[in-house]
Amino acid sequence: MDIKYLYYKHETLKEQKITIIGRVRSNRQGKAVSFMVLNDGTTLNDLQVVYKEETEGFDEGTKSRVSSIVEVEGILVPTPSRAQPFEIYATTITLLDQAIQDYPLQKKEHSPEFLREISHLRARTKTFQAIFRVRSTAAYAIHKFFQENNYVYVTTPVITSNDAEGAGEQFIVTVNENKDYANDYFGKKASLTVSGQLNGEAFAQAFKKIYTFGPTFRAENSHTTKHASEFWMIEPEVAFADLNQNIQLMQDMLKSVISYVLQQNKAELEFLQEQLEPGLIEKITGIVNSKFKINTYEEVLDILQKAIDNGHKFEENNIHFGLDLGTEHERFICEQINKCPTFVVNYPKEIKSFYMKLNEDGKTVAAADLLVPGIGELCGGSERESSLDNILERCEFFRINPEELDWYIGLRKYGFYKSAGFGLGFERLIMYITGAANIRDVIPFPRTPKTLLY
Amino acid sequence: MDIKYLYYKHETLKEQKITIIGRVRSNRQGKAVSFMVLNDGTTLNDLQVVYKEETEGFDEGTKSRVSSIVEVEGILVPTPSRAQPFEIYATTITLLDQAIQDYPLQKKEHSPEFLREISHLRARTKTFQAIFRVRSTAAYAIHKFFQENNYVYVTTPVITSNDAEGAGEQFIVTVNENKDYANDYFGKKASLTVSGQLNGEAFAQAFKKIYTFGPTFRAENSHTTKHASEFWMIEPEVAFADLNQNIQLMQDMLKSVISYVLQQNKAELEFLQEQLEPGLIEKITGIVNSKFKINTYEEVLDILQKAIDNGHKFEENNIHFGLDLGTEHERFICEQINKCPTFVVNYPKEIKSFYMKLNEDGKTVAAADLLVPGIGELCGGSERESSLDNILERCEFFRINPEELDWYIGLRKYGFYKSAGFGLGFERLIMYITGAANIRDVIPFPRTPKTLLY
Repeated sequence: MDIKYLYYKHETLKEQKITIIGRVRSNRQGKAVSFMVLNDGTTLNDLQVVYKEETEGFDEGTKSRVSSIVEVEGILVPTPSRAQPFEIYATTITLLDQAIQDYPLQKKEHSPEFLREISHLRARTKTFQAIFRVRSTAAYAIHKFFQENNYVYVTTPVITSNDAEGAGEQFIVTVNENKDYANDYFGKKASLTVSGQLNGEAFAQAFKKIYTFGPTFRAENSHTTKHASEFWMIEPEVAFADLNQNIQLMQDMLKSVISYVLQQNKAELEFLQEQLEPGLIEKITGIVNSKFKINTYEEVLDILQKAIDNGHKFEENNIHFGLDLGTEHERFICEQINKCPTFVVNYPKEIKSFYMKLNEDGKTVAAADLLVPGIGELCGGSERESSLDNILERCEFFRINPEELDWYIGLRKYGFYKSAGFGLGFERLIMYITGAANIRDVIPFPRTPKTLLY
Repeated sequence: MDIKYLYYKHETLKEQKITIIGRVRSNRQGKAVSFMVLNDGTTLNDLQVVYKEETEGFDEGTKSRVSSIVEVEGILVPTPSRAQPFEIYATTITLLDQAIQDYPLQKKEHSPEFLREISHLRARTKTFQAIFRVRSTAAYAIHKFFQENNYVYVTTPVITSNDAEGAGEQFIVTVNENKDYANDYFGKKASLTVSGQLNGEAFAQAFKKIYTFGPTFRAENSHTTKHASEFWMIEPEVAFADLNQNIQLMQDMLKSVISYVLQQNKAELEFLQEQLEPGLIEKITGIVNSKFKINTYEEVLDILQKAIDNGHKFEENNIHFGLDLGTEHERFICEQINKCPTFVVNYPKEIKSFYMKLNEDGKTVAAADLLVPGIGELCGGSERESSLDNILERCEFFRINPEELDWYIGLRKYGFYKSAGFGLGFERLIMYITGAANIRDVIPFPRTPKTLLY
């Protein structure tokens, strides 16, 4: 039986015989009785086992070290007055596999830094059990949302020859390691993808509504708490859709995903709220219940300038058209002014990507970033440029050689009427939902500069 | 409105005004009326639009080329006597974006080879719409099966330093391209993963039941119809489980996934049956309804030897203990002898991986391959070796340096009682379900030696 099942069914199982296999979290001998706490990973909840000298296998029980695997047969006894609703009174304990004495995760507080060094073991701690279970639920909620809305899941390639997107530094993929690309595996220079968007857009022309969900990579030498070299992105794309529909989609998706996690992982979120971020559940429930606000970029500039005029100090106080908003500005807008998630739309064309649709004003593009309280930018999207002339001009501006992306740019020649989509960094969402402060703590085996463990 | 919605609701929408945006598949002028066939990607079904000189935008309508995007307003008229259940009598046609004359996908038969050259466009053909929609549904069905059974989804790393698994040739990931790994991005040699299994096993020790579903890579110079350089794998792992439970899991998962696709993608499967593989639906329905059979490897050798003695000729007729069964042998067993999907268990230890549990006979390991009619091996799994001594001995046999995998091998020191799992190549499953004969045709943007398009 799973411990999850016992918690689910303990009322109908009372006084009945049950059998459990689990890992020892702690084991202590009292005068009259001994206590063993087991966990089997199926739920955050532990199982308390009570055993005595009369218990068959008492000696094996007493010598079972932390992290050993034991099998317990016993009777389920309700304990309504205690923290846990029931215990198991063991009739038999079998030590199935003994752990060594110096198991690194003894019952005490460990620093996140230490735990990152043992990422093959840290998922056994309650905090990481909670984080990684939420991650799993959220991934499923994303698939569920899109599939139930008739989006086609497209796995875009990890190895790519696109290197002109300008989204970030790329890793090279090679078998020869000698820069002789003509004789390398693919006969040309190959890299790890920074985004599946361009490929996804091609498929949106075929299926109208698609989404990608896969790993993406940056070879940047970033050592922040928000950057990893390998992370997962969700990139939906909808043909015949404009920026407003894109904004609605971001909102619908986020609300749907967070609602599902709230419903499925209540225990995990309560634990994380206690351990990592006070007010966590209220914060994410707020996303579900908010009506998101929309401000234009120029409105945001006005708001920021007024705040400065009234004495507010940012680190960057030179507010001007063309400014790339910092996290301080983003958080100010959604936390202090709007007090709700906020879309900022119509950014200056110079600070956004070449594929974004030029607005009629000739100076802004149809882009929308979603800012959320507590974090700033959570995801960003745009309507795509449908005019071949405009996109070629934008390539020139950004010094992108359009021939290297002719397949993508050329989609505009074969019937192209609006397309819009966005990118959501999956780990950033998980940090937001779990309260984890470091991206390394929401990725099972994180990859960062000079760190490649397991 | 989506064309999918029209097909779903056409009975209640009859004689009503509807508006549709779609891509022109064909457009021909008759004497009295003209016909335009539209598709919007939301369903395999096309929409027939009838228009006349009185139709507003008639001229735009007549000049709309194949692949152009048009908006049609009109009345939904039932046509019970024809192939399609209804048509649209257009009142207004607007040409939203005209395609160029030489759009590569004109209405005619195209070879799969030609279509592979334009993988950014081929999803617009009916065959690829059907294949990639089935792919999407099947991916979701896999998540659904595992999530509903309390498995935790683990995204295992794509970039890895594990290079001792022996599962295949690896791509190098680098920023320096000079083999000076100490000064490279990660400070050590980095490769693209060949399997997430080992990382997944570590997480199964934390959550009991986990699954991976992500891209894996082989740098082998294979030019077959079954090998790609980048493909997706599903690798579930269950702690405290043995080979029999693993076999049951493979069976349950496959039946669940195929049932879901049969239920969701009936139209796609019927189209693929017609285009790619006669009998397709019966074949896959057979998987759902079969009781799978189990044979030991040695039983299989006996059956093959008897067949040879009775005059059957294989390409490989030297049947002996240690033989790596070929596809011809695998198909013979499940097609000719058992006439149902068949697990072959307990393979010679020399031909299977170092991490598989050594059986008590000392010569076989607790491995199980699933053979299915029409294809041979579909997936393979094993119970994992739990004895530290045994696994070290196996490393020595395969000349694997155990220090390079000490984190994985060392899991056995911290309480390890049985663990079993399997690997399923996602594309192989999709080939099986869709009838596609070439792996390049079930991957949106396939990667193979010397081929890196889009």
